[in-house]
Amino acid sequence: MQRTLISETTRKIGEKIRLAGRVYSRRDHGKLVFIDLQDRSGLIQVVVIPDNKKTHQIAKDLRNEYIVEIEGVVKEKPGNTNRDDLSNIEIEASKINVLSEVIGDLPVDISEKDLNVNLETLLGHRTLTLRNNKVKAIFRVYAEIIKFYAEILRKFDFLEIKTPKILSSATEGGANFFKIKYFDQDAFLAQSPQFYKQAGVGIFERVFEIGTVFRAEPHFTSRHINEYTSLDAEMGFINGFEDIMNQLEKVLTFVFDEVGKNCEREINIYDVNVPKIKTIPRMKLTEALNILEKEYKKKSEGVDIDPEGERLIGEWAKKKYDSDFIFLTHYPTKIRPFYTMPSKDPQYTESFDLIFRGIEIATGGQRIHKYDELLESIKRHKMNPKDFKHYLDIFRYGMPPHGGWGMGSERIVQKLLGLSNIKEAVLFPRDVKRLTP
Amino acid sequence: MQRTLISETTRKIGEKIRLAGRVYSRRDHGKLVFIDLQDRSGLIQVVVIPDNKKTHQIAKDLRNEYIVEIEGVVKEKPGNTNRDDLSNIEIEASKINVLSEVIGDLPVDISEKDLNVNLETLLGHRTLTLRNNKVKAIFRVYAEIIKFYAEILRKFDFLEIKTPKILSSATEGGANFFKIKYFDQDAFLAQSPQFYKQAGVGIFERVFEIGTVFRAEPHFTSRHINEYTSLDAEMGFINGFEDIMNQLEKVLTFVFDEVGKNCEREINIYDVNVPKIKTIPRMKLTEALNILEKEYKKKSEGVDIDPEGERLIGEWAKKKYDSDFIFLTHYPTKIRPFYTMPSKDPQYTESFDLIFRGIEIATGGQRIHKYDELLESIKRHKMNPKDFKHYLDIFRYGMPPHGGWGMGSERIVQKLLGLSNIKEAVLFPRDVKRLTP
Repeated sequence: MQRTLISETTRKIGEKIRLAGRVYSRRDHGKLVFIDLQDRSGLIQVVVIPDNKKTHQIAKDLRNEYIVEIEGVVKEKPGNTNRDDLSNIEIEASKINVLSEVIGDLPVDISEKDLNVNLETLLGHRTLTLRNNKVKAIFRVYAEIIKFYAEILRKFDFLEIKTPKILSSATEGGANFFKIKYFDQDAFLAQSPQFYKQAGVGIFERVFEIGTVFRAEPHFTSRHINEYTSLDAEMGFINGFEDIMNQLEKVLTFVFDEVGKNCEREINIYDVNVPKIKTIPRMKLTEALNILEKEYKKKSEGVDIDPEGERLIGEWAKKKYDSDFIFLTHYPTKIRPFYTMPSKDPQYTESFDLIFRGIEIATGGQRIHKYDELLESIKRHKMNPKDFKHYLDIFRYGMPPHGGWGMGSERIVQKLLGLSNIKEAVLFPRDVKRLTP
Repeated sequence: MQRTLISETTRKIGEKIRLAGRVYSRRDHGKLVFIDLQDRSGLIQVVVIPDNKKTHQIAKDLRNEYIVEIEGVVKEKPGNTNRDDLSNIEIEASKINVLSEVIGDLPVDISEKDLNVNLETLLGHRTLTLRNNKVKAIFRVYAEIIKFYAEILRKFDFLEIKTPKILSSATEGGANFFKIKYFDQDAFLAQSPQFYKQAGVGIFERVFEIGTVFRAEPHFTSRHINEYTSLDAEMGFINGFEDIMNQLEKVLTFVFDEVGKNCEREINIYDVNVPKIKTIPRMKLTEALNILEKEYKKKSEGVDIDPEGERLIGEWAKKKYDSDFIFLTHYPTKIRPFYTMPSKDPQYTESFDLIFRGIEIATGGQRIHKYDELLESIKRHKMNPKDFKHYLDIFRYGMPPHGGWGMGSERIVQKLLGLSNIKEAVLFPRDVKRLTP
């Protein structure tokens, strides 16, 4: 008999069907056995009556997480008022076939609505805890975010590209590169597709990439992971870095609108609001630092904003503009990479960070597109132009004014669903100590 | 003035507009200067008349690959019969603004229809050669393939996942892992998402991934690269490995149908046929080896098929079934990984390779889903179960019968467009010697 999905049972009342799925839970009521059976499409109650002795015996031995096939008849529960609702339907089982059993005890009861386990347990037993419905919901939302990110960029003529993750040198600056043994050479893992997406602008004018990036940052925080999926985009023929912010604003507006429409169930599980973006306020970083000092008595050390400052400015944006987002702009030249376009006042750059609910989720800006200026900038940063031969070639052959952004996909999900740690937003996260499962 | 895309000019005849793009070529005819200007939307002829002295002088100094803005009026060419065709329209320029120049000579003339350079030049000057229109077409087709791959899998309820690329151990067997220094540990780069997509089946029942994989294979061939984008999928509750082949057949039918519809221009540039899949013939590997011996006098060494054998059996499938594809099935146990489901005759496995135009593009099959059988198989393969603790956990907590495939995205493009080397199908390929650009 063909398998019927649980979601299809509402259209098969009175029919005999075959379901296949996972035992979510089992309850015995007198001589009746009730099984909540789950498959990818939903969850339904199965009742096993004692008349059918063999099936009844199998049912009594079932445990959570057993994989089973069940044949039976679809019945309406007494007093059913809505035939489309799975909770008004049950299956009266005639046959149960166990496809796979559970070995030993389950270390975590994943049928609980909230797992209520600490992070170590959540991640240590990841292949099991991910099966919890509330945890699963995170990754349904995640899949929609990357889907709609790609969809909206394609609508705006961005071409999807895949760029190399193994690099010959760790030239972008900074020490956060993992080193690899590449046959008889040393190589490094890409911490961003920066140079390659810029090359992409020279080829296709507008490109985007959804790809893994690697950061050898020895941080133990709730917002850092060492491997993540970056949502990158880069576009040519801009009039200024405002164009980049405008584009990113359009992208996020679409993504959140679609997530709101398509993830209602998941959003309800987390009881959160999906942001409705009108316009995202924009503010110079220096101004933000002033506000922090005036409104929150928070002195900034140096010229940058720290995580606590981002949290507070996010709070301020919510209070002042009723916005979950704020663009901080014109970061100082000395804390931005060498390829960043300087502002008229060369102490500052045509760059931005995007803060979402108090955390930086994207970094972007305009890049230097003229060969000579880029060469100067490399020298000014005390780096060796020889290390940048191939990168410089891009600009040797004509490049339009351009810019783009890199955005952390996991941080979007984390802040959207209100997860306390970014690792909850990754199927199998990697941190300084964690390489398994 | 707002920028007009070249493709929009057909709707703006008589209007003054501003274009921005790249000089594809420049020709002087007497006192007239003709520029072919290209942007992401198309290519159009711009004419500069000598009356406007300043603009004329700028036009005369333009070289290929200069980035320019051009203001001018949209005109129909004499005898225009089709206003929607860009070749019937030209722009009479009134103003030209050079945004970016070319430094030195271009090492390759990329305005040629066919580049006609050797592979070393093609790859060595990659940031330039990728700008050639015929080369660019490859990556437009590529982007459509990965787009439609994701689209059809979502339609079949597969959830998109992202799995870690840094692994704690090179446990899957084989020596083709790159080693990395991960803080104070050693780690390895994933050569497939195998274990994680199987975990994904335990969570979501059906999953797919489009992700980078790394292979430390020291091969110098036209079909190997050391970093590529794998199209993976894995599905639960199968009745047998035929279900996997059926699913893959549906996926490829959709992908090639859509590529045929959406990439007409690119397909024409390469003058190739897009395969129309009806059903893909299936044949046991042993039978294929017999055919090779009988029809092509090719003796096989050992139990496997070699690249030449794949080429010939592809030829044979074309001749015999008029099919660009053939599934070879039931590979011997000893040449398949330990997790492969054995057939009734345990010398063979419930597995397949998919050959497309004589090259293997996908490998797949059913996996062992019972804990005890998997444990046995690990031991039989002389591996240590302790190394597989987290992997075995997946099966400890109940797993449905399942299987899936891994498919090389670049090989699909290579064989579809008839590229002689797979490196042509990668923006910035990595091989044993090549880590730049």
